Amino acid sequence: MRSLDDYRNATEQSLLPMLRSLGEIPDRLREAMEYSLMAGGKRIRPSLLLAACETAGGDTRMAMPFACALEMIHTYSLIHDDLPALDNDDLRRGKPTSHMIFGEDMAILAGDGLLNAAAELMAGAALRLDDLQGFHAMEIIMRHAGVTGMIAGQTMDVISEGGTPREDLVEYIHSHKTADLLEAAMEAGLALAGANRDQIAAGREYGYHLGMAFQMTDDLLDVIGDVKMMGKKPGMDEGKMTWVALRGIADTEKDAREEIDRANEAISRLPWNTALFQEFARSLIDRHL
Amino acid sequence: MRSLDDYRNATEQSLLPMLRSLGEIPDRLREAMEYSLMAGGKRIRPSLLLAACETAGGDTRMAMPFACALEMIHTYSLIHDDLPALDNDDLRRGKPTSHMIFGEDMAILAGDGLLNAAAELMAGAALRLDDLQGFHAMEIIMRHAGVTGMIAGQTMDVISEGGTPREDLVEYIHSHKTADLLEAAMEAGLALAGANRDQIAAGREYGYHLGMAFQMTDDLLDVIGDVKMMGKKPGMDEGKMTWVALRGIADTEKDAREEIDRANEAISRLPWNTALFQEFARSLIDRHL
Repeated sequence: MRSLDDYRNATEQSLLPMLRSLGEIPDRLREAMEYSLMAGGKRIRPSLLLAACETAGGDTRMAMPFACALEMIHTYSLIHDDLPALDNDDLRRGKPTSHMIFGEDMAILAGDGLLNAAAELMAGAALRLDDLQGFHAMEIIMRHAGVTGMIAGQTMDVISEGGTPREDLVEYIHSHKTADLLEAAMEAGLALAGANRDQIAAGREYGYHLGMAFQMTDDLLDVIGDVKMMGKKPGMDEGKMTWVALRGIADTEKDAREEIDRANEAISRLPWNTALFQEFARSLIDRHL
Repeated sequence: MRSLDDYRNATEQSLLPMLRSLGEIPDRLREAMEYSLMAGGKRIRPSLLLAACETAGGDTRMAMPFACALEMIHTYSLIHDDLPALDNDDLRRGKPTSHMIFGEDMAILAGDGLLNAAAELMAGAALRLDDLQGFHAMEIIMRHAGVTGMIAGQTMDVISEGGTPREDLVEYIHSHKTADLLEAAMEAGLALAGANRDQIAAGREYGYHLGMAFQMTDDLLDVIGDVKMMGKKPGMDEGKMTWVALRGIADTEKDAREEIDRANEAISRLPWNTALFQEFARSLIDRHL
């Protein structure tokens, strides 16, 4: 079994060829799409998809278009999130955001382009596979990315800003905005390998709890970072829908550890070696807490 | 054979049920998506898709998710086109545009949502069909809508504004921004009915020439409308990439008629009754010129 870093490197090398395989894209549009796609993410979603597929006995070459499509969807969501009308961020991972470099018009089009490219890439790859597994994976990914999934989470995040955090609302936002694409990675990877319904459900559970833990530790890091770096008082003051604002630091740490345990409990139901997934889940805690 | 109005009515009645079949969409997002989707378009693309499918012996009920998906893609492109960072339009078809009512943030998300919903709807419908025709149709639609298709045309339109019209550039913009989704309608409708490669190619040619004629007559109507209503001098003055700015009124009229002839020549290669398509193409001229 390979490591998550191996899957990351394989993804890294495939993203541009996959995008360019679609045909002649106008230069400015292609540059804007490639800029954000290659801006140096951790490639967690495609790596998990490839790992899930290989763990279940599938072929990662066959899964690569789906892995790259998932990363394109994640990337488009960041481009649109950063727009002035949404989060209005000038920087992401220390680099100027898309609209700062290419203008708002091109940032909107580059986001649209990446979302469409993802669906186009998967449809083409699935047709070439000549069985239904590719189409199952595609349906899974589009559903988790869509208006009952990631976009729903983003919508509630936007609408709720400034309101009083409520547990059901914070859970809704995190589960859709963050966990949905991790569930998609696990489910799609397993589906591509021909895993059965129960196995796919175990993958989804792992993705869900991993996503919740991910968001909790991210919220913690924000607050702890603020305290360390700016002496700012944690939580509450910003009116943001975070787990820390709702539960405080100590309980969020506890909750995150519980989510990791649940993730690993779920993934250990799979009849294969799942050490990679369990280590990855634990590494979230080690890194953040 | 039914009329295009029949197909339009059938589409009209299916759009909301199709969207809602995706599951629980947050209210504000659903309202924004439905507002633009039901803002009263002519439904030309889905109607042509259904007509092409039935003409070739296919079942329009089976084709309906693809027809609705195509209209969702058309609608998302209008929402994003109207945004302040792009065309900055306050009104469309006499109604306030999406961002005027729901704000820019929700207009961006509603557009993303409709594009994603289109792919999700097609993937689900294709899986239920249990043969490859649905996936072929989906691949056709996503390709024509994408970064080598409609989004490419939109990009070049945005980039070229204010420049000197050049024939190759105007042709590129019109063929992608306008013709691509009409080609998609014809190709996908025929593919869903199991038409062969030559028949699908004839449908694509019809869609291409129809799209070019459509854009030419639209440009003409703009100019003639301006002259009639505001006494404004036609063409040239706006620095827009239109056929009229390039060729003048008289030659654009001639070119549009030639495109209609070519469209009808192509569609008459199909071994079925294509009167509906020929009448529709001619109606463009009658209405506009």
